[in-house]
Amino acid sequence: MRTANIILMGLGNVGRAFVRLIQDKKEVCKQSYGLDLRLSAAFKKDGGFFSNKSLDLADVLELKGNNFSRHPDWKPGLRLEDVLGRFKSGLLVECTPTDIKTGEPGLGHITAALKRKWPVAAASKGALVVNFKGLKALAQQNGVALKFSGATAAALPTLDVGLYSLAGAEITAIEGILTGTTNYILTRMEEGFSFEDALKEARSRGIAEPDPALDIEGWDTACKILLISNAVVGTEFSLSDISLEGISGVSPTNVQKSRKEGKALKLLGRLINEGGRARAEVRLNPIGPSHPLFNVSGANKAITFFTDTMGSITVSGGKSDPRATAAALLKDIINIYRN
Amino acid sequence: MRTANIILMGLGNVGRAFVRLIQDKKEVCKQSYGLDLRLSAAFKKDGGFFSNKSLDLADVLELKGNNFSRHPDWKPGLRLEDVLGRFKSGLLVECTPTDIKTGEPGLGHITAALKRKWPVAAASKGALVVNFKGLKALAQQNGVALKFSGATAAALPTLDVGLYSLAGAEITAIEGILTGTTNYILTRMEEGFSFEDALKEARSRGIAEPDPALDIEGWDTACKILLISNAVVGTEFSLSDISLEGISGVSPTNVQKSRKEGKALKLLGRLINEGGRARAEVRLNPIGPSHPLFNVSGANKAITFFTDTMGSITVSGGKSDPRATAAALLKDIINIYRN
Repeated sequence: MRTANIILMGLGNVGRAFVRLIQDKKEVCKQSYGLDLRLSAAFKKDGGFFSNKSLDLADVLELKGNNFSRHPDWKPGLRLEDVLGRFKSGLLVECTPTDIKTGEPGLGHITAALKRKWPVAAASKGALVVNFKGLKALAQQNGVALKFSGATAAALPTLDVGLYSLAGAEITAIEGILTGTTNYILTRMEEGFSFEDALKEARSRGIAEPDPALDIEGWDTACKILLISNAVVGTEFSLSDISLEGISGVSPTNVQKSRKEGKALKLLGRLINEGGRARAEVRLNPIGPSHPLFNVSGANKAITFFTDTMGSITVSGGKSDPRATAAALLKDIINIYRN
Repeated sequence: MRTANIILMGLGNVGRAFVRLIQDKKEVCKQSYGLDLRLSAAFKKDGGFFSNKSLDLADVLELKGNNFSRHPDWKPGLRLEDVLGRFKSGLLVECTPTDIKTGEPGLGHITAALKRKWPVAAASKGALVVNFKGLKALAQQNGVALKFSGATAAALPTLDVGLYSLAGAEITAIEGILTGTTNYILTRMEEGFSFEDALKEARSRGIAEPDPALDIEGWDTACKILLISNAVVGTEFSLSDISLEGISGVSPTNVQKSRKEGKALKLLGRLINEGGRARAEVRLNPIGPSHPLFNVSGANKAITFFTDTMGSITVSGGKSDPRATAAALLKDIINIYRN
């Protein structure tokens, strides 16, 4: 039996879903994978849960809102760096909010963890988007895993399939519908909705974020194609390398014109990797019925890998809610300890 | 740099494609995976290529038909068991014809390899279908990998996704369109072909085997759902446990009736894993547009995993030709040495 001493950064929707999930899956992980999941500490912006023994998961879960201060192990103002030396071993789970400009606070957390030779499973994109090359090199120098399935389309397996299922094949292109919100809006516009009404509905159904700008303007898709391409194909893209288009300028006329031609207008994250040169873009594309992503509608996501020896392989589906993102983190943790 | 000393069983279409592929991918495997692929020996029914040094791949490839006897390393009548003790280490690649009644000759080859602590990558189904439980136990006792991506839908990643990408999730059901021939025939029948004409066309286009009975009667799908279910969910099915239906009794009227109702008639391999009981079947099912396999047409294959935490995840596409099956073998080999 191996033990994962988990240090959790972030107690928002995903962090809390993760706490609940590892509680639900504790016995399965022991039986099926010989892995004992323990929550050693959990931090949020204004403090942390920390004690000399394993935290009681149920206790943490029961705490609503800002009532953390009632918990005996809650230390107001405590930060990861204050107690780094107190852990004999650790696995960092990074779920803090994504900031694609600074990468913080995740960048600091992940850097500190890798330097201590802790493996990392990340659901937040910021740190990896801002400094992919540096973090990858740091993980390699320290001989530990840095995984981020939860940051690249939640439960939809993008990195695994590219790295593991296609090992040995040359990936000549990648195309993905990687943001549920934009795909949902485009689908509703095909059905006659205006952009504003489709966005309003996506918000009311909890599909769009309260501030959907990152999705609408294509940044979310750009971050994901960057991470997938850098991880799977070995490119070294920064966000500024990715040619970007959003959907805010799309009119129902554009969408329906494509439909009349038998095509669907989709926001695709795309890597083209041919002739020794790779480029990436986020672009609105009208795609026909023979394209593997043609039928991916609503808030669904999918990715197609085009290869030299295996043909094209498409993965689609997978939930995007906090529990599914937590499940992607758990998958990464199981696979870290399996190897 | 690690070395894979490959002992190849079978020099039919897949075996030859594998020899060519590892020649083409030799440098990529060294550079990207630190793995040196060497062909130590290759056997067919009536003899083997064997020498004290690595075989020259190009030489073996150039040999057409039965002209193997011209090759200096060809030993007529030589069998694997004659030279087992001569290899310091080995990796068995099993590509002999599938016999789902006896499992031979693959069963003997795989058993001998595992007993010598050689990892195995198999493209032939017979041995695993006949004695899955025994071979799995033997691999575990000897602490070596037994992989068979090439036997479970060629380049379509079924096992990887189930075992690796869904780690930690409970798989409540699996549904797959796992045989290209039957899906091709059903698609053509939707377009108005008779069963006989559709089969004739599938044959002339090289989609159907010369003897397509195993496909048409559902056995090929049954073998694949058995292997996927046993490997991913841990069931212990034999072929006799799987309720079976083929497509030879289907009339164009059946197919078109489904189409008129907005449904597609598909031959599905299915595992239902609920309430602590698992059962598997191969069944013709009319499925509607909301089913993730509805749009999988022609000779395409796909599989959907239904899970507790991640939603449903579908993988589709992937070539089925000998080179793609060889690519699945190579993927397994890379992943064996990666771990």
